[in-house]
Amino acid sequence: MSFIEGGVCAPKGFQASGVMCGIRPNPVKNDLAVVASDEPCTCAGVFTKNVVKAAPVLLDMETVKLGKARAIIANSGIANACAEDCEVNARKMQQLGAGALGLSSDEVLVCSTGIIGQRLNIEAVEEGLPGAVEKLSHSPEGSASAAEAIMTTDTVRKEQATEVLIGGVPVRIGAIVKGSGMIHPNMGTMLCFATTDCAISREMLDSALRKACNISFNRISVDGDMSTNDTFLILANGMAGNPVIKEEGEDYDRFVAALQSVSCDLARRMAADGEGAKHLMTCTVTGAASEEDAEILAKSVISSSLTKAAIFGNDANWGRVLAAMGYSGVQFDPDGVDISFRSVGGEILVCQKGHGLEFDEELASAILTQDEVEILCEMTEGDGEATCWGCDLTYDYVKINGDYRS
Amino acid sequence: MSFIEGGVCAPKGFQASGVMCGIRPNPVKNDLAVVASDEPCTCAGVFTKNVVKAAPVLLDMETVKLGKARAIIANSGIANACAEDCEVNARKMQQLGAGALGLSSDEVLVCSTGIIGQRLNIEAVEEGLPGAVEKLSHSPEGSASAAEAIMTTDTVRKEQATEVLIGGVPVRIGAIVKGSGMIHPNMGTMLCFATTDCAISREMLDSALRKACNISFNRISVDGDMSTNDTFLILANGMAGNPVIKEEGEDYDRFVAALQSVSCDLARRMAADGEGAKHLMTCTVTGAASEEDAEILAKSVISSSLTKAAIFGNDANWGRVLAAMGYSGVQFDPDGVDISFRSVGGEILVCQKGHGLEFDEELASAILTQDEVEILCEMTEGDGEATCWGCDLTYDYVKINGDYRS
Repeated sequence: MSFIEGGVCAPKGFQASGVMCGIRPNPVKNDLAVVASDEPCTCAGVFTKNVVKAAPVLLDMETVKLGKARAIIANSGIANACAEDCEVNARKMQQLGAGALGLSSDEVLVCSTGIIGQRLNIEAVEEGLPGAVEKLSHSPEGSASAAEAIMTTDTVRKEQATEVLIGGVPVRIGAIVKGSGMIHPNMGTMLCFATTDCAISREMLDSALRKACNISFNRISVDGDMSTNDTFLILANGMAGNPVIKEEGEDYDRFVAALQSVSCDLARRMAADGEGAKHLMTCTVTGAASEEDAEILAKSVISSSLTKAAIFGNDANWGRVLAAMGYSGVQFDPDGVDISFRSVGGEILVCQKGHGLEFDEELASAILTQDEVEILCEMTEGDGEATCWGCDLTYDYVKINGDYRS
Repeated sequence: MSFIEGGVCAPKGFQASGVMCGIRPNPVKNDLAVVASDEPCTCAGVFTKNVVKAAPVLLDMETVKLGKARAIIANSGIANACAEDCEVNARKMQQLGAGALGLSSDEVLVCSTGIIGQRLNIEAVEEGLPGAVEKLSHSPEGSASAAEAIMTTDTVRKEQATEVLIGGVPVRIGAIVKGSGMIHPNMGTMLCFATTDCAISREMLDSALRKACNISFNRISVDGDMSTNDTFLILANGMAGNPVIKEEGEDYDRFVAALQSVSCDLARRMAADGEGAKHLMTCTVTGAASEEDAEILAKSVISSSLTKAAIFGNDANWGRVLAAMGYSGVQFDPDGVDISFRSVGGEILVCQKGHGLEFDEELASAILTQDEVEILCEMTEGDGEATCWGCDLTYDYVKINGDYRS
């Protein structure tokens, strides 16, 4: 599937903006984002499974049930979790958004990301919101400024969009995403806001969102820490004019494939921009007993601190890969596992049938010094396969997280 | 319980030694250890749950079933896992040990720790073993040289011993341990060899070992990576002359308490000597619904990369503690959680009933700059409590593990 420009503003009838409202003292970048549809929408959401949920997550879970949200207000800097007045402030932010956009409160979703346990400066949101609404734009710049506004320790803005024919009609899907630390399967601190002009029922939208989330954001890990704020939202305004997707079938499959392609691309880029990351680390397991097993095994590899440190050191230490598979909880025959490393620098088999091979250390080093490194684990248990994405563990991860609050 | 000198040589009738046999090129320290009893023993063992098990682990699992081992031969440098001839070399090492000590093969346990996937230099073991046997000593120096021989990235030698009255007779328990990286509950790369002159049946010894392991080594984590080689062995030669412990009761309880006190002390020191660690990080959860819940919660906190990085940065970032509890898998009411930090520098409450408090940052910093930091999580679910031990995540962890093989 090919991608197009415009992020969340690529689909018809969506506007976005980002402004600097001063959530935290000495702001240096946009910290308040708005995404809004010109027309009513259906919506769906997937949220963190952490028992400790941020106030906006709890509020959005209720709002999404009503299924008619058409705008998202989001701030970075403060997570609005476990803090004074967090429930009150989440509701206030929803009401302020509704007022500024001329919508009812249950048409507005709210998200926060940043430090846990500190009070959200709702006064800054109140002051900044009119400017953000005024700045709303259908242009790619609108999506870009919103994408910037939700970044925390992210080093690059992350947007993506695609177009797919549904019932012969071009339908677009766009998304912006943030996430760099506290990222782990079952939704990492990540926010993903997707928009589409597809005409689709709430039930089918919800189902498509879950399918896309399962093979994208639920297959990445930066540090194994699951956040209190993770949220993946989608708004669908139907403005493409395609025949409404109301049930499974070819149209639904095409929509799911397009949404998966956007979300996998963003998940991959989120892992590559993991806090302090120097390498994107992809692990593909094939020949597992089932897709579920393959996913558990690949996740265990990309989550292993020792494997992550080895990749940082350009070290073909495949023993750590096999050990991580071994403690994943999946039963398998270690003597049936082949392990290779691959990148644009080449490919090298380092372990065959569970035993180490003599290999060319120079070639291995040439492969591992590349920015994107793949770990390929071929098993002989069945035909289950899955790919997960992570990043290396670096000095900078420790530096960033040893001193995040200050 | 008070401790005594002598490590594995503290109990009557045990000798130990360590020599440098040259398992790896350019050896710089002892790398081959022997622990042996003058008299026949009962024995018990607990092993890694990793699906990928090193060859000596698989062999010891068989040998322990026979229950009459009285010596341990261990090398550091190479894990003898997933490598050419690993099964053959484990068995060869057992036979060489038996030959050198004048025992039968099934009286000898073998252990290896180090790099996975490289061939064990069994020729070096063969050459070094006679010298190691000749050097065997009942003195504390014997235990110390064996403790040094099993170290890999450990920075300090770890031994402990205690004495307890059983049936009015003084009984001793001693142990040496290694472990610094690839350490995670359900047995980290750790080896623990314990000796005792207690007269105790095999069944009771096995049960005591499991109880001690569960509240000590299974409650620590350095990096979340479970090794292929973890082994906790105990040899009991009965030379103290106490009435044989054959069933549960006061004598058994006293023995278990003594073994737990030695193993908890060593587990704590293993965490403190975690790869690159600057802080020992202890998390105690009280008021959980059960002891099991408390353990899962405390383990999740000490395993969290973000919490570990915050402790490295002397940062009272309790939000990460609460988030780690939240994703542990245990259900609880976040609004019933109080969190404090404590050390010799003082104690400070930073989160009350799930919400952040304003707190004295200077006092917090004075507390967190100490070498040993406790995180106290008080809940309102029940009376379950547990303590787990970990360490901070530092630049040096990344450095050590980015370049371990070279």
